[in-house]
Amino acid sequence: MPFSPSQLEHPIVQAPLGGGASTPALAAAVCEAGGLGFLAAGYLSAAAAGADVEALRDLTDRPFGVNLFAPPQPVPDPEAVERYVRRLGAGAGNPRHDDDDWDAKLAVLAELRVAVVSVTSGCPEPAVVERLHAAGAAVWITVTTAAEARTAEAAGADALVVQGVEAGGHRATFDDATPSDLGLLAALQLLPAATALPLVATGGLVTGRAIAAVLAAGAVAAQLGTAFMLTPEAGTAEAHREAIATDRDTALTRAFTGRTARGIVNRFMREHGPHAPLGYPDVHHITAPLRKAARERGDADGFHLWAGQAHALAQPVPAGELVRRLAAEARAALEETARGTGRV
Amino acid sequence: MPFSPSQLEHPIVQAPLGGGASTPALAAAVCEAGGLGFLAAGYLSAAAAGADVEALRDLTDRPFGVNLFAPPQPVPDPEAVERYVRRLGAGAGNPRHDDDDWDAKLAVLAELRVAVVSVTSGCPEPAVVERLHAAGAAVWITVTTAAEARTAEAAGADALVVQGVEAGGHRATFDDATPSDLGLLAALQLLPAATALPLVATGGLVTGRAIAAVLAAGAVAAQLGTAFMLTPEAGTAEAHREAIATDRDTALTRAFTGRTARGIVNRFMREHGPHAPLGYPDVHHITAPLRKAARERGDADGFHLWAGQAHALAQPVPAGELVRRLAAEARAALEETARGTGRV
Repeated sequence: MPFSPSQLEHPIVQAPLGGGASTPALAAAVCEAGGLGFLAAGYLSAAAAGADVEALRDLTDRPFGVNLFAPPQPVPDPEAVERYVRRLGAGAGNPRHDDDDWDAKLAVLAELRVAVVSVTSGCPEPAVVERLHAAGAAVWITVTTAAEARTAEAAGADALVVQGVEAGGHRATFDDATPSDLGLLAALQLLPAATALPLVATGGLVTGRAIAAVLAAGAVAAQLGTAFMLTPEAGTAEAHREAIATDRDTALTRAFTGRTARGIVNRFMREHGPHAPLGYPDVHHITAPLRKAARERGDADGFHLWAGQAHALAQPVPAGELVRRLAAEARAALEETARGTGRV
Repeated sequence: MPFSPSQLEHPIVQAPLGGGASTPALAAAVCEAGGLGFLAAGYLSAAAAGADVEALRDLTDRPFGVNLFAPPQPVPDPEAVERYVRRLGAGAGNPRHDDDDWDAKLAVLAELRVAVVSVTSGCPEPAVVERLHAAGAAVWITVTTAAEARTAEAAGADALVVQGVEAGGHRATFDDATPSDLGLLAALQLLPAATALPLVATGGLVTGRAIAAVLAAGAVAAQLGTAFMLTPEAGTAEAHREAIATDRDTALTRAFTGRTARGIVNRFMREHGPHAPLGYPDVHHITAPLRKAARERGDADGFHLWAGQAHALAQPVPAGELVRRLAAEARAALEETARGTGRV
């Protein structure tokens, strides 16, 4: 039987945080505390993703998940991408259209028999889902609308990660030319008419009360990303941690990667966002050297500060403690609220 | 003691639906079923608003609320408004900057000793809040961010209506030049750090499970607008009802009124939205004759189809039955979820 989110001791999933914040140590701490830890295979080579899986297995015997980016769509306007390169000027990288080593990563995850494989920003072919099923994996597909939910169920998904517009990082929209702006609670209401699959809710969830809310709304578990980014186990850059701990506004932008994503508003986003073309991962490769340099010099105005809308409430505590604390708060909120509405 | 939302038999508030959907019959049915009904005084003369209050008092002895639009900000660019008049062409009205009879309406509501006065799209002066308090009213101010919550609490509000970006109709943002995109669950998490006032949650709430969710998130009640628009007591236009009953997308636009609002995407929004200036109520007056004509000929492509993101789930049942059904569903969802998380 593939892993089901209803098997979790605590209904808390640690979101895969591509680009360095997810670490085997973070995922292990979450798993050991009774949640579901996740590794992010995006941006890594297949070999590096496999090494992370093995490192995590040295730290925990519990099931965990690995996230893959779906192969990207063609770039609609290569000239717009070239204009963006010129706009960014010296230090920009070369545009490149690749699939992030999709086939090789699928092979590694099947070979290593990972318990949960989640896919973001597109729907895998049914044959891919079958192949992962044959390797014992549960396949979770991230969706943002009822239409995407229907497509994902038809492809064979075992569960859906429902991402609201509040979420930090990339929007999971299948076609980024028309990203949906559905809030999480609206999506959780609309999806049951489209699918009977278990729903894992994600997007702006940072507190125990918010976890309680999505469970009451019908989700089987809550997936939290930003909430884990200040834990000592996360690989979050220092300048990024400092921004998350403020109450600065977030916004959606294609400035950094050519795909819509939410981050804390900074100079790079303000200056380049209005000019950024649709074009993932080409734009990701263009801006990568600039972002790396900014991160290395601690310049929070020069790289992507991915964060969900409630980032100001993220807590700098060990990840295992955070899982236990959030689960207890969610339980207490549900019991208190049920008692309150039961009084009449 | 002013009316408190915690006094409600059911934690359900009917949102004031300006422009004709709110009627005394709708508010009365909600009140009689144990929720809180609301009248919308916006767009009405003070005399007409007063007449609605008296009509509602003939139908119920229970407390109810009346909503006012805060006086608008100056129009930032009158020339842009003139350009929009020319763009709309024949049939467009004349731009006019007015305050929707603010002082006269305050006088009427104070005179009639309405239980709850809510204010939307701006924060009233503390002296106004005091005057309403002196007339026995509880004052609820609609907010979309933690900063607005602090301002509203400082002005003397008794409760805050927290509006998420999922909401249909006008965004309640104090300064529409910079509307926030906070989802409801994110806002409900962030606001308690800014204010200790009771929070009434609104934005995209159509089901009992969604009501359960916002209560678990800490709200004292849920305010539902679109959910009531298909009830027989609502004054919703027929073409508008038909659009709400579909699963068509919604979007934010200034096309109809010069103030950001969410409606079902239609031709008017697509054609004019990208060109619409910031300028409420001037743009409202410009488009009013065009919208009225479209509504009268049943042309759903020619007027504002205000709707929250989960509109497809609105039910065409009597309002009192809807209140009782939603309250029972919310209670059941909370009890079931509390039991589920209590198992471990």
